Amino acid sequence: MTRIRVGLVGASGWMGRTHALLLAAQHVVFGPEPSVSLEMVADATPELAADAARACGVARSTGDWRELVASPDVDVVDVVTPNHLHHTIALAAIAAGKHVYCEKPLAMNSRQSFAMAQAAGRRGVVTLVGYNYPVNPIHRVAREIIAAGDIGEVVNVRFSKNVDYMSDPQAPFVWRHDRSIAGSGTLGDTVSHLLSMLQYLIGDVAEVMGHVRIVHGERPLVPGAAIGRQAGPATALRKVETDDEVLVLLKLAGGATGTMDASRVATGRRMEFAYVVTGTRGSLAWSIDRLNTLEFYSAADRPGRQGFRRIEAAPEHAGYGAFYPVANIGMGYNDQKMIEIRTLIEAVAAGRTDAWPNFADAHRIQCTLDAIAASSLERRWVRVSEIAERCETTSSPVGTEGSAS
Amino acid sequence: MTRIRVGLVGASGWMGRTHALLLAAQHVVFGPEPSVSLEMVADATPELAADAARACGVARSTGDWRELVASPDVDVVDVVTPNHLHHTIALAAIAAGKHVYCEKPLAMNSRQSFAMAQAAGRRGVVTLVGYNYPVNPIHRVAREIIAAGDIGEVVNVRFSKNVDYMSDPQAPFVWRHDRSIAGSGTLGDTVSHLLSMLQYLIGDVAEVMGHVRIVHGERPLVPGAAIGRQAGPATALRKVETDDEVLVLLKLAGGATGTMDASRVATGRRMEFAYVVTGTRGSLAWSIDRLNTLEFYSAADRPGRQGFRRIEAAPEHAGYGAFYPVANIGMGYNDQKMIEIRTLIEAVAAGRTDAWPNFADAHRIQCTLDAIAASSLERRWVRVSEIAERCETTSSPVGTEGSAS
Amino acid sequence: MTRIRVGLVGASGWMGRTHALLLAAQHVVFGPEPSVSLEMVADATPELAADAARACGVARSTGDWRELVASPDVDVVDVVTPNHLHHTIALAAIAAGKHVYCEKPLAMNSRQSFAMAQAAGRRGVVTLVGYNYPVNPIHRVAREIIAAGDIGEVVNVRFSKNVDYMSDPQAPFVWRHDRSIAGSGTLGDTVSHLLSMLQYLIGDVAEVMGHVRIVHGERPLVPGAAIGRQAGPATALRKVETDDEVLVLLKLAGGATGTMDASRVATGRRMEFAYVVTGTRGSLAWSIDRLNTLEFYSAADRPGRQGFRRIEAAPEHAGYGAFYPVANIGMGYNDQKMIEIRTLIEAVAAGRTDAWPNFADAHRIQCTLDAIAASSLERRWVRVSEIAERCETTSSPVGTEGSAS
Amino acid sequence: MTRIRVGLVGASGWMGRTHALLLAAQHVVFGPEPSVSLEMVADATPELAADAARACGVARSTGDWRELVASPDVDVVDVVTPNHLHHTIALAAIAAGKHVYCEKPLAMNSRQSFAMAQAAGRRGVVTLVGYNYPVNPIHRVAREIIAAGDIGEVVNVRFSKNVDYMSDPQAPFVWRHDRSIAGSGTLGDTVSHLLSMLQYLIGDVAEVMGHVRIVHGERPLVPGAAIGRQAGPATALRKVETDDEVLVLLKLAGGATGTMDASRVATGRRMEFAYVVTGTRGSLAWSIDRLNTLEFYSAADRPGRQGFRRIEAAPEHAGYGAFYPVANIGMGYNDQKMIEIRTLIEAVAAGRTDAWPNFADAHRIQCTLDAIAASSLERRWVRVSEIAERCETTSSPVGTEGSAS
Repeated sequence: MTRIRVGLVGASGWMGRTHALLLAAQHVVFGPEPSVSLEMVADATPELAADAARACGVARSTGDWRELVASPDVDVVDVVTPNHLHHTIALAAIAAGKHVYCEKPLAMNSRQSFAMAQAAGRRGVVTLVGYNYPVNPIHRVAREIIAAGDIGEVVNVRFSKNVDYMSDPQAPFVWRHDRSIAGSGTLGDTVSHLLSMLQYLIGDVAEVMGHVRIVHGERPLVPGAAIGRQAGPATALRKVETDDEVLVLLKLAGGATGTMDASRVATGRRMEFAYVVTGTRGSLAWSIDRLNTLEFYSAADRPGRQGFRRIEAAPEHAGYGAFYPVANIGMGYNDQKMIEIRTLIEAVAAGRTDAWPNFADAHRIQCTLDAIAASSLERRWVRVSEIAERCETTSSPVGTEGSAS
Repeated sequence: MTRIRVGLVGASGWMGRTHALLLAAQHVVFGPEPSVSLEMVADATPELAADAARACGVARSTGDWRELVASPDVDVVDVVTPNHLHHTIALAAIAAGKHVYCEKPLAMNSRQSFAMAQAAGRRGVVTLVGYNYPVNPIHRVAREIIAAGDIGEVVNVRFSKNVDYMSDPQAPFVWRHDRSIAGSGTLGDTVSHLLSMLQYLIGDVAEVMGHVRIVHGERPLVPGAAIGRQAGPATALRKVETDDEVLVLLKLAGGATGTMDASRVATGRRMEFAYVVTGTRGSLAWSIDRLNTLEFYSAADRPGRQGFRRIEAAPEHAGYGAFYPVANIGMGYNDQKMIEIRTLIEAVAAGRTDAWPNFADAHRIQCTLDAIAASSLERRWVRVSEIAERCETTSSPVGTEGSAS
Repeated sequence: MTRIRVGLVGASGWMGRTHALLLAAQHVVFGPEPSVSLEMVADATPELAADAARACGVARSTGDWRELVASPDVDVVDVVTPNHLHHTIALAAIAAGKHVYCEKPLAMNSRQSFAMAQAAGRRGVVTLVGYNYPVNPIHRVAREIIAAGDIGEVVNVRFSKNVDYMSDPQAPFVWRHDRSIAGSGTLGDTVSHLLSMLQYLIGDVAEVMGHVRIVHGERPLVPGAAIGRQAGPATALRKVETDDEVLVLLKLAGGATGTMDASRVATGRRMEFAYVVTGTRGSLAWSIDRLNTLEFYSAADRPGRQGFRRIEAAPEHAGYGAFYPVANIGMGYNDQKMIEIRTLIEAVAAGRTDAWPNFADAHRIQCTLDAIAASSLERRWVRVSEIAERCETTSSPVGTEGSAS
Repeated sequence: MTRIRVGLVGASGWMGRTHALLLAAQHVVFGPEPSVSLEMVADATPELAADAARACGVARSTGDWRELVASPDVDVVDVVTPNHLHHTIALAAIAAGKHVYCEKPLAMNSRQSFAMAQAAGRRGVVTLVGYNYPVNPIHRVAREIIAAGDIGEVVNVRFSKNVDYMSDPQAPFVWRHDRSIAGSGTLGDTVSHLLSMLQYLIGDVAEVMGHVRIVHGERPLVPGAAIGRQAGPATALRKVETDDEVLVLLKLAGGATGTMDASRVATGRRMEFAYVVTGTRGSLAWSIDRLNTLEFYSAADRPGRQGFRRIEAAPEHAGYGAFYPVANIGMGYNDQKMIEIRTLIEAVAAGRTDAWPNFADAHRIQCTLDAIAASSLERRWVRVSEIAERCETTSSPVGTEGSAS
């Protein structure tokens, strides 16, 4: 396929606009082949969709995503809606034979993600889930170091992502606190990032012991409030239904152990995101504070001169040179996201359904999220395979549950 | 002006492609008004230009920049050529009544920059010089803190930018080593960044004591070699004509003192860029390693709890929210550059000729560069006003000279 | 008591020598009152003891610690032996009416520590346990900030201490791998540091979910090998009996949650030691990499200028000025330890039995260690009170067990 | 000499007490041979001396340093007085055949230091100057890396030491502002540290261009005020006579260039101390913020995995293991100083007069300080040899002058 036409569902928010931005700019970075165009946008109302279309320079818009899915001018359906719509839209798109690009978390629970992955597999369409961070070239360096055995066998991992945008107990209730829309809180929103990075670097989680909790149980209900915006005085208090904080002990398929901690109420940590991977002969460490730097320790270095070295992303690293001819100049979030979209475009062009992370990959992440939730509720270690098998053998719902301890 | 049509001279390199990328994406970030379009590209040959046009999705191309300058479909001439062409192209564009956006350094020397600033002033066109970094919202925070007096009176500054892309003595001779094309080395290429940041944050330099030198005097001549690419075996050695390293003591107009150090042979420092601004009641520090973080110390904080605090760029800081609704997520180089282009667009739309940094601002930076070069040659403190006055009173060339000590 | 005479049991190793060093130097830092003297040293053999005495400039030595405990010239028995001897020596010293200073971990298990704390309480002697780090003045600043409510209510803690001195699978078997001598591995050796710091800053742990494991199950047996020294070729392999790695989810008495991770096989992390304490209105962070710096975030700072600030230990902080009149000059490990010893000296001089951390405080830490071990074995959350109550109600042994997962 | 008896002149301040502390503790760290004792202390009055003697546990004290110098029980005279007395006391001690240990700066000017070095050389006594920092084992690692050629040829150095203890313009006038006592301000107090570190790592400075200035020209005169202590209301203003800030461009004997910046009015920088050494094939960087860590970049590392590595001081580095068997545990200022004193003790025991840095080494540093001062006054590059030759050929005073710009 040398011409790829995208239909964007959910164009009025930040992430929708970001997709539009990066689709428009693809060719300047990666060249004119294949041609990529944003053909159409859908949003909750015709007015919102029309506004977004105008802002993005797109001719067609609709207030009904089904129209977009049905359009013969759309090859790829790009799903950037709130979480509770991913399942329905993606299944409809797959049924229509469209390729699907979907923002994380893939679904509300593993039953949904199982259905989505199954449908995509049966229909043979290309799918990709937007986890944003792993595509940064610096993580490819990390993956290559691990795969080459340069840190030996992985023994332990520590993954952290903590933010503070809900740390104020008086921050108003928004859709992310509503279980019927968001599915979960920090679990789906943040731990999904950690698990995707872990899957990219090393592989899947085998077993978890989780503690999932709501820290601030009620929040003011403020008409018109959105994240980062308080529209007026509170009219009432509303019970928070999604988790603020997730702590996990984990065991990887390969035998390593690890911890994860994630929060949206981590006062002062505007955006902490970091990992440490410890092996028998070396280690790696990364933090978003130095987005493009990887720390690498090798026990093979000369004694007395060993130490973590800071590898800075540079043109000699695959994927970086398309953006900058100079090291450490500041590859940013949008650059990363453009690489992710390029992955989608190349997979669609080649008809490859196994580009990472497709719906099957994301389903395993969703199973891990559900395992963490179940572990927290039941106060016991839970194997991810237990969740996965339940998806295959039953049609009963398996929710992503948060426990308030 | 609600429709702004840009002609890009020099489209085939990294920076040209970056301009094309960001012009194409303007509207998605900043909205559809005014409309911005890249109308035409020029390059050294028709073939290069046509290739660039195809990659950038632009209809018209030319191998003769004069055709672009003369085109009635071009409102803004965007100069992204090697340094030695800035002067001629910009003067021609101004003469044609075009607005001009020019990459740094503005000119080969202060005589040229004087002529360019004079011409722009007389013709009343909008000019802007691309220094890239100061537009990052985090530096606006720094400027506001200084302007508000929150660090008291500025006492001292330290500005450093050191890179290593020429640290290998065997790296081949490229155009940046050729004085007739580059004008100078680290001085124009790097110290211009430091001076623009200083001018943005605080103001102009009054007097300098510089040491400018070539560290590696000869380099292999390799046919087809470019920066970061070695095409084949060396055929000969060629004398390096531009400076590798610049060290400066300086006095600011306001009485503060400072140091600058810059190098392109700083082995291992892939990209160091940092400043410290010390005042009587507080201080600021920034480093590109944490691109979006400003360190701020206030002596007004409670004793025993004073300390440099890390302010991370966030939606509450002007200019950041247009990109990201989340703090510290990784605003990057291209995002910065898009803000710079937006500054240009808004100035052109409003017909404002005083947006910072216009050619007059950049001329003062060029005078400082020449003062540093003169100081190094003559081994004495040189006042910047001495250079500026020479520009106004004589037509004799004032070069940007590098001394080999 | 204005004259305090110390008898040191275990003088030939690093820590014993450190005690001797700091006892000898007390008066120069803290003044001549009360007078402190090291009267006598005991070690495993008369020869070792005599050598240590000569090195430390002490007149009396013995190969039998019972002689030291019985001596009327000894007021304080200082226990710096391997772990398995703490219980016996301390009980004998208490029975003889001596004050006791004991290195961590206090005991092999909580049954032992219970007996030690009970005996000390009944006899009314002063006890102190050497955890080394919490006495650094920077942590006192942290404790005051928390106690003053300046970070609001504590929501979450993260404590990490990872070292790599056993990361080489071929590092030989030493006494720390022998359960009968060490009791446990990382649990007693390292997690005890984390728990003491947590107790000092905030308080006790209420409930734990632990994962404790041996990573390298066998090690070469090398005659004469010690930590950091390999004496010759391996003669056999020996099974490792103590844990290499400990991961914990925890709940504090006050409602906060947290994680701990500790390891002695963390390749490349020569000495990681760090904590983050997150509150509803602020946060704290510390790392041994910047031993004397505390990071403090206050939500009360002006919006747009909030950020973690680095408070550097300085003369204005209590406890620092006795050492240095200059901030951030490098207070070191031995300085910390000298403050700890001063705490002991002042408590003995005043007859205060409640100086932190006495045997009762250390017993609660030992109960937490045992709870972690039990939790790991039984794969369930364990309340610390469950362990503590078992100590009081039964005479059956409660071991510090490590599980190999 | 197996028994070394020290007489301490200036025992009542911080540094005097530190010497006493470390002399008392020598044997516990380094063993009983040679025996070291502090025999006697002198201070400005008999009362001060007696108090210091009591605090330090020394039997003999005197209010007349000449008595100490004359005592047959003193082998080493340890000079810890204000700067203006170093010259007289050291010359008297040398004349009496005593070895001399003197705190930095060695003298008020290079004429004095020349006389001191000459006298010591003629008399054959051991001399050592206390610069504190270079003896840290981590700098020995740096020196070895440089000496082994592992960073290639040194191209550039950057040395910074900035503190803020005089940043408050209202901080009262103390002896350090009085030229007749202190000789200079930041120049002697701080730049001497930078120059000693540079001399230790690489070698001597050949030529300098300095800018030396007083930032706050007058300070309140407060009866009884001392550094860090304000005793009462100001009674008058007094003109500050010593420099607050020193900025230097420099050329090393070996051809490298560099910068130095030092200040005592660097608001917020409680203690910045850092260096970068750039070579043709590698680089080093160090900062006091991570006192025991050296960053090392080697261009010989594998492409794509190059980066500055953090080498943490550990038992495998010479000089560290005497203190700690564990890496990165926090070697501190006093530990460093103890190594320095050990250097003295071993030199005296062996009768070696060439232990670094003896008076001849320190004289070259003093010449460089004088060259910086002269350069600033005369606004020109000054060769250090020019100052050194003046010392040898004239008896006229060569002062360490600060210029107020």
